Amino acid sequence: MNTGWTGGAAAVATLTFDVDAEAPILAHGHHYAEHASTMSHQAYGPDVGVPRILDLLDVTGVPATFFIPGWVAEARPGLAARIVARGHEVAHHSYSHRPPTGMAPGEERADFERGMEVFAAQGIEILGHRAANWEASWETATLVAEHGLLYDSSLMGDDRPYRVTTVAGGVTELPVHWSLDDWEQYAFLPSPHVGSVIESPRKVLEMWTDELDAMAQFGCLFNLTNHPFLTGRPSRAIVLRKLIEHAQERGDVRFMRCGDLARQAAADETLATRPHIPPAASPEVFPPR
Amino acid sequence: MNTGWTGGAAAVATLTFDVDAEAPILAHGHHYAEHASTMSHQAYGPDVGVPRILDLLDVTGVPATFFIPGWVAEARPGLAARIVARGHEVAHHSYSHRPPTGMAPGEERADFERGMEVFAAQGIEILGHRAANWEASWETATLVAEHGLLYDSSLMGDDRPYRVTTVAGGVTELPVHWSLDDWEQYAFLPSPHVGSVIESPRKVLEMWTDELDAMAQFGCLFNLTNHPFLTGRPSRAIVLRKLIEHAQERGDVRFMRCGDLARQAAADETLATRPHIPPAASPEVFPPR
Amino acid sequence: MNTGWTGGAAAVATLTFDVDAEAPILAHGHHYAEHASTMSHQAYGPDVGVPRILDLLDVTGVPATFFIPGWVAEARPGLAARIVARGHEVAHHSYSHRPPTGMAPGEERADFERGMEVFAAQGIEILGHRAANWEASWETATLVAEHGLLYDSSLMGDDRPYRVTTVAGGVTELPVHWSLDDWEQYAFLPSPHVGSVIESPRKVLEMWTDELDAMAQFGCLFNLTNHPFLTGRPSRAIVLRKLIEHAQERGDVRFMRCGDLARQAAADETLATRPHIPPAASPEVFPPR
Amino acid sequence: MNTGWTGGAAAVATLTFDVDAEAPILAHGHHYAEHASTMSHQAYGPDVGVPRILDLLDVTGVPATFFIPGWVAEARPGLAARIVARGHEVAHHSYSHRPPTGMAPGEERADFERGMEVFAAQGIEILGHRAANWEASWETATLVAEHGLLYDSSLMGDDRPYRVTTVAGGVTELPVHWSLDDWEQYAFLPSPHVGSVIESPRKVLEMWTDELDAMAQFGCLFNLTNHPFLTGRPSRAIVLRKLIEHAQERGDVRFMRCGDLARQAAADETLATRPHIPPAASPEVFPPR
Repeated sequence: MNTGWTGGAAAVATLTFDVDAEAPILAHGHHYAEHASTMSHQAYGPDVGVPRILDLLDVTGVPATFFIPGWVAEARPGLAARIVARGHEVAHHSYSHRPPTGMAPGEERADFERGMEVFAAQGIEILGHRAANWEASWETATLVAEHGLLYDSSLMGDDRPYRVTTVAGGVTELPVHWSLDDWEQYAFLPSPHVGSVIESPRKVLEMWTDELDAMAQFGCLFNLTNHPFLTGRPSRAIVLRKLIEHAQERGDVRFMRCGDLARQAAADETLATRPHIPPAASPEVFPPR
Repeated sequence: MNTGWTGGAAAVATLTFDVDAEAPILAHGHHYAEHASTMSHQAYGPDVGVPRILDLLDVTGVPATFFIPGWVAEARPGLAARIVARGHEVAHHSYSHRPPTGMAPGEERADFERGMEVFAAQGIEILGHRAANWEASWETATLVAEHGLLYDSSLMGDDRPYRVTTVAGGVTELPVHWSLDDWEQYAFLPSPHVGSVIESPRKVLEMWTDELDAMAQFGCLFNLTNHPFLTGRPSRAIVLRKLIEHAQERGDVRFMRCGDLARQAAADETLATRPHIPPAASPEVFPPR
Repeated sequence: MNTGWTGGAAAVATLTFDVDAEAPILAHGHHYAEHASTMSHQAYGPDVGVPRILDLLDVTGVPATFFIPGWVAEARPGLAARIVARGHEVAHHSYSHRPPTGMAPGEERADFERGMEVFAAQGIEILGHRAANWEASWETATLVAEHGLLYDSSLMGDDRPYRVTTVAGGVTELPVHWSLDDWEQYAFLPSPHVGSVIESPRKVLEMWTDELDAMAQFGCLFNLTNHPFLTGRPSRAIVLRKLIEHAQERGDVRFMRCGDLARQAAADETLATRPHIPPAASPEVFPPR
Repeated sequence: MNTGWTGGAAAVATLTFDVDAEAPILAHGHHYAEHASTMSHQAYGPDVGVPRILDLLDVTGVPATFFIPGWVAEARPGLAARIVARGHEVAHHSYSHRPPTGMAPGEERADFERGMEVFAAQGIEILGHRAANWEASWETATLVAEHGLLYDSSLMGDDRPYRVTTVAGGVTELPVHWSLDDWEQYAFLPSPHVGSVIESPRKVLEMWTDELDAMAQFGCLFNLTNHPFLTGRPSRAIVLRKLIEHAQERGDVRFMRCGDLARQAAADETLATRPHIPPAASPEVFPPR
């Protein structure tokens, strides 16, 4: 019996953790390496947040996917392997966490391939990719297809998995969204200036629980993105646990690793294919700035 | 019996949806067309949000008004017609979604007329207009009057419909307000930088329900603006449904399309006329910057 | 019996309304006069907000103080007089609403005096002053003293009235604070860019009620600042009414006009005098930028 | 019996108050000394906030630590001594509150030593240090070790005390975090532009109570940072009292001064040592900006 991409569940939940460490801050400028407080703020992610989250996933019995920039995996040998050993998926999250939309031609490819090489050298099987900052270029999906990966998770064109066609073949897109990301709720740094008000974890629990329930009603993919340097903090980790337990109590939400979901989605012939080309926007109508 | 612009209701509710798609982002600069994630984030509006909202309006039995930039209607042939076929009004929302206040002389007129031509070519009857970004110039209402439209919906000089006099004749203004807009609550993009914290739909439901109840007390127009790329998301759509159901349970709030309300308001001789001229502000008192 | 500046109440509440209209926006640059939507957004204050607030004050029986820039009083003849006729105080809020801290030498004095002349010409008695944007210079209080006014309401050095000594004599300060201002909660404009998230009136009611209760415990001045273009909106006006009713139900909070309070405070010999001079900050320690 | 750094408690709470007064504003540029409203806003901290907080600590019987910039202690002789006389610790918070990350070589050392001299001249024993803005350089901890202090409290690499090794010897780090700071919740100034929405103290109480409870579950250091010019306001002070009372009712949270905790932590041989060196970030991977 073919039950489609959801496997018969009301909704599928993919818990994803972007283990960015220092990379997204350094991507704002190399001099941030001199900011000891900020660097320690970022190091908290792999050093304290990841172990706490791994324990939480053990206790709740839920598999997850960890997107890691190659530079982070390289700087912390053993990090990716420890995550895989706990039963989770490690996926490609660029090499340097610089956003593709800000790169010169050729740079994105080089950065992508350097990341792939790091994971290959560490013996980590890579099934999918997520663009830094969720700022994919139109080439990003092509690189994903070209390297034989199953899925990308950087676009926002739907709230269910969909197919994207590239010159190098098809890719399954597991779409993300800013409202299912802990960054906009919790992140704060004075320099580089990031964030504004820091939100209460209870607000975040309310918002994500409501979205999960609504997604179960509409048959969607609850693709949640957390950062260990943010959600690894005590009360935020507990909120994540409460969210998982809420989903488990519902009984109709299935937790999956992204790679497993991508395989299941690829087998669903009813999956929508969404156009993947720049809008036909004339510079006369929309002038350059 | 003349019951005035409200038709005897305690308040009138006009649900409006600005189907902006990629246009407001491209209006920040043509190069954003290269940002695949951001473009997909915007495409979600017409592709996923609009169908979900149309279903929601069917289920609740409420008519609505969809403001569409001409460029969006052109890029997605059939979109406007499908909305009209479901019983709703389609209205003019500029051609390019560039704000009139940032245009050179003549540009606003050209943009306005190009939008009118798109809808004419698609056989869509246009009764009213809303300026991009709610950043009308003093010429905007003149263009609306000159083209024989019934109403404009871009100003904020009252919370009840009012008359505006222009050199080309009178226009009924259906005023808007930032607090009845989903953009300030939900929008977030890193580049162009849009928004800060993303709010919980429950907060938005609370705020809009309170405003609707207060408006029923004061006899106002509850002119709500939602963007399908924002409010089309699952839990936000459900909050919109709860808001509609709250209004229906009150029993004294009437849902109308903007065009129907504009006709009813035009027949109300007690409607206020508000001055529509720039303030007498000397550059000596308020220096240019 | 001398009961001090509170007159024996647990706390004194001064409701103040800054009727700024278009002035604070034009102070960002003269070209904003061309922004029709924004100008209408500001005109809502005197045109719709003020009448609604005056009715609300009548119903609750509470006297208030309206700070009006001279330019606004001039542009809307009769506005100040109508407010006075309803039993409220009108006070000086600069001429142009440009902040003193941004003015060249002499400019602040000229602006201050031009405002005084407008009110004199309209026969409005002026007892006090509030600096535009609460950005007073060290000269501001001197101007207040020199013109024989009783009080200033622009500083934040205490949460009880205090004395300030200037070369032109003493002034009673009725201190303000950002947390008792509706601007940070409600204001939003895209251009000039003002505000971020728009808050729910229920949150504001909670925050201000808690502060009023705490101030009654500590014996403070609850000096609330609202802007009619913001708090004149329906559900916000209702929240203001609920706040007033909460204070009235307490029974130990006294509502006063600022001028009446300033007289009562001036007679309190125990009132603190706070230093009113720039900090001794060497440019070697704090370099110019 | 060695009960480790917590002394057997479920969590340790260090209440810390950064008595910054005008310094962090002047650090944005010397000309802010001319802004009378803003200077009074900052003076409220030592003048009104500190006495209120000292009373609150007396009533609840809790010892605390006050971090004071040397310039502030110098400008207000007796301030530090009065705090010590009430049973609290005074600690070093730079001289000028300019962040080390923005300083030229040698400047940080000079600023650090000038602060030490102020406290020495006032007979205040200094046990620890906190960098201005929590923007420590990699040299900061070295300066702390070199001057024989017990602890630093500027880094964020853990939520439990940890050891940092420097060329001048070891330092105990009592880590801080943006989410346990009142600045991001309450601070607002128009110029220099600081903050956005001002949050309700009830939200802050909820968030900090939840974090305290979660930290008691994970065995962490609840290192709370408040600023008297912010949390000294009436309803915020009451919220701080409620938080303290919540912790006291739990019965398993121990309140300590930072110096006392640092001694206890230094004696815990199981305390983690975290690396304290810049990340190996090549400028080819992360270009300068």
